[in-house]
Amino acid sequence: MQVYLDHAATTPLRPEARDAWLAASEEAGNASSIHGYGQSARRLLEEARERLAAVIGCDPIEVVLTSGGTEAVNLAVKGLWWSRSARADAVVLPDGEHHATLDAVEWLRTAERAAVRPVALDGRGAIDPARFAGALPGAALATALVANNEVGTVNDAAALSAAASAAGIPLHLDAVAAFGHLPVSFRSWRGDAAGHTGLSALSVSAHKIGGPAGVGALVVSRHARLAPLLHGGGQQRGLRAGTQDVPGAVAFAVAAELAEAERETEAERLSTLRDELVRGILSTVPSAELLGDPVARIPGNAHLLFAGAGGETLLFLLDQAGVAVSTGSACQAGIPEPSHVVQALGRTDAEARQVLRFTLGRTSGPDDVAAVLAVLPAAVERARAASGTPSAARS
Amino acid sequence: MQVYLDHAATTPLRPEARDAWLAASEEAGNASSIHGYGQSARRLLEEARERLAAVIGCDPIEVVLTSGGTEAVNLAVKGLWWSRSARADAVVLPDGEHHATLDAVEWLRTAERAAVRPVALDGRGAIDPARFAGALPGAALATALVANNEVGTVNDAAALSAAASAAGIPLHLDAVAAFGHLPVSFRSWRGDAAGHTGLSALSVSAHKIGGPAGVGALVVSRHARLAPLLHGGGQQRGLRAGTQDVPGAVAFAVAAELAEAERETEAERLSTLRDELVRGILSTVPSAELLGDPVARIPGNAHLLFAGAGGETLLFLLDQAGVAVSTGSACQAGIPEPSHVVQALGRTDAEARQVLRFTLGRTSGPDDVAAVLAVLPAAVERARAASGTPSAARS
Repeated sequence: MQVYLDHAATTPLRPEARDAWLAASEEAGNASSIHGYGQSARRLLEEARERLAAVIGCDPIEVVLTSGGTEAVNLAVKGLWWSRSARADAVVLPDGEHHATLDAVEWLRTAERAAVRPVALDGRGAIDPARFAGALPGAALATALVANNEVGTVNDAAALSAAASAAGIPLHLDAVAAFGHLPVSFRSWRGDAAGHTGLSALSVSAHKIGGPAGVGALVVSRHARLAPLLHGGGQQRGLRAGTQDVPGAVAFAVAAELAEAERETEAERLSTLRDELVRGILSTVPSAELLGDPVARIPGNAHLLFAGAGGETLLFLLDQAGVAVSTGSACQAGIPEPSHVVQALGRTDAEARQVLRFTLGRTSGPDDVAAVLAVLPAAVERARAASGTPSAARS
Repeated sequence: MQVYLDHAATTPLRPEARDAWLAASEEAGNASSIHGYGQSARRLLEEARERLAAVIGCDPIEVVLTSGGTEAVNLAVKGLWWSRSARADAVVLPDGEHHATLDAVEWLRTAERAAVRPVALDGRGAIDPARFAGALPGAALATALVANNEVGTVNDAAALSAAASAAGIPLHLDAVAAFGHLPVSFRSWRGDAAGHTGLSALSVSAHKIGGPAGVGALVVSRHARLAPLLHGGGQQRGLRAGTQDVPGAVAFAVAAELAEAERETEAERLSTLRDELVRGILSTVPSAELLGDPVARIPGNAHLLFAGAGGETLLFLLDQAGVAVSTGSACQAGIPEPSHVVQALGRTDAEARQVLRFTLGRTSGPDDVAAVLAVLPAAVERARAASGTPSAARS
């Protein structure tokens, strides 16, 4: 196995984050204990929180550490809903959100009688701010991706936040796919939103940027009203109970600082590399089609439709050739389903099964692009033959 | 700082668990990805799950990994409640449970209209199985500690499980304080319980036994009905979504195996050491009183009442002398409150503020006991003086 192009699923742990984890794990002490050991642990924890806040553009007290993006999203969506459900019952839910959001909202719908207001995406996978604004009045909350984790399309987070602020509705932004790759600033997106309205919560994850798995955060505005998901010892403003994972928090902070420090140069390097990959694919597999926005997309993301070729088959053929890619989110636990994101672009169910996502990251280079281009055309031919699609009819 | 006697709050990471974490973190790959990297990660994960299952006495598929004990407890209590709340609304809640349980149930009471059926403890902090059984009929669920995390009293988990089975009520056992120190066997406690009744879920935590922070598990019977707390990608039987923390799981498995392998010898060593500590304290501070059960208690736990001496003051004085102890659970986020566990033993509010918990662990030895005995009597004198209690009146 040599070519890893699934950095959006998870990206290797940064050595600096690993070393920080190790150093912090030498400290005994529960950060909630009041003796000296506990105080040392708490100092490390609060310093990590400050460093994360500086990267995300929020106050340290607004950083609520979680076990990852999924918990952060669930806390935001359910927490905002529970704090508002006595007054309003609708959740504004754009199409194509991550399954953590979709499934949390679906549970609220079935178990807690929430109403769902969908917002259609445009053909490139973006949320139209005007359409989003139109769905907001009287809702309990709204949620939206900063950038789509499958097709990579970047939304106008500032416009979505402003719409929520104008409508007086609390908004959660899912920045898991965007953080570390695109500019993220909770403070500037929140702007002068009043009280518990406007941008209220923003979720991020560590393992997507070279931090450890099992660590994430929900930024919760100090003015937000949010019910906790995990009750207990009252840690983190009472919003998230549980013994704090100090080494995880420290390693996350280190990874976030490194990702932010190199973000602009990496964005340029990776989008150049990505564009080479896309150009190469389009020239060797002429029927292939780039999905999502060609410009406003996550730098390392290339998401392509190979009409007539099953994405799962392609994935297996590439895997055999030593190239690791994805058909979409890794969060489907290995069950091949048509991508709901691709469907949300107005594509057919069949097309939603004929896509591949290539995501480049820190360890990617020109050799990886060359390796894909060397094996992909034959793989597409074989996948089409396997599905009974005559290659002449498609290319 | 030299003497750490707060192992129940958290205990140092075992070097073997640290090394396992490091080795696993070298593997790139999301365990939900279907390419070779993902498969490697999944192999590590499932092997860790098998090893944990072997230690806990359950099937691998019954191990649902969580971000720690608090999440496991919240998943059990709320998950069982949501799966049953259409038919029953009462939660059987013994006094003196951990705050994760107390606060989760309190939230169900206020937000979801659950009814609470308390069960009084006896004077030693134990749950009387007959009294517990009496509260069960028609309840939605019951929950109970295997061993009390503050006073250390061990409950009759088999009898509590049998009572739940006989009553046809699902039971959650909180084994966070017990696991690694006392015999824990999900399978034998569950016995021949029918379907979704009897022992249905059991929570454990990694950092209490020398594993990493931010890792735990809820054992969920394959017959249990449980709603998830975190929705998303369908990982772990759909019971707990989120990218799996593979290094955390592997390190937890290593710590659990080591703890189990040394459990009996450590239990003997630590209870001998603990008894020396208690004898020493009772002879140098004659008014001190051991709380909890003198025999049926967690091996490393010594929990004493120092009448007339504020526990917080004592803790600070000992901390200054280089001895780290606790007044109870570390999960109160540093807010000094009277211990609800001590109150549940029938003690006054004042007494519930005059206790110290000493918990010995893997790194504890006779020097630690000697160090406590060297400084404690003077600290008690000073604490009593600070609270205006004449020492002559108490000792």
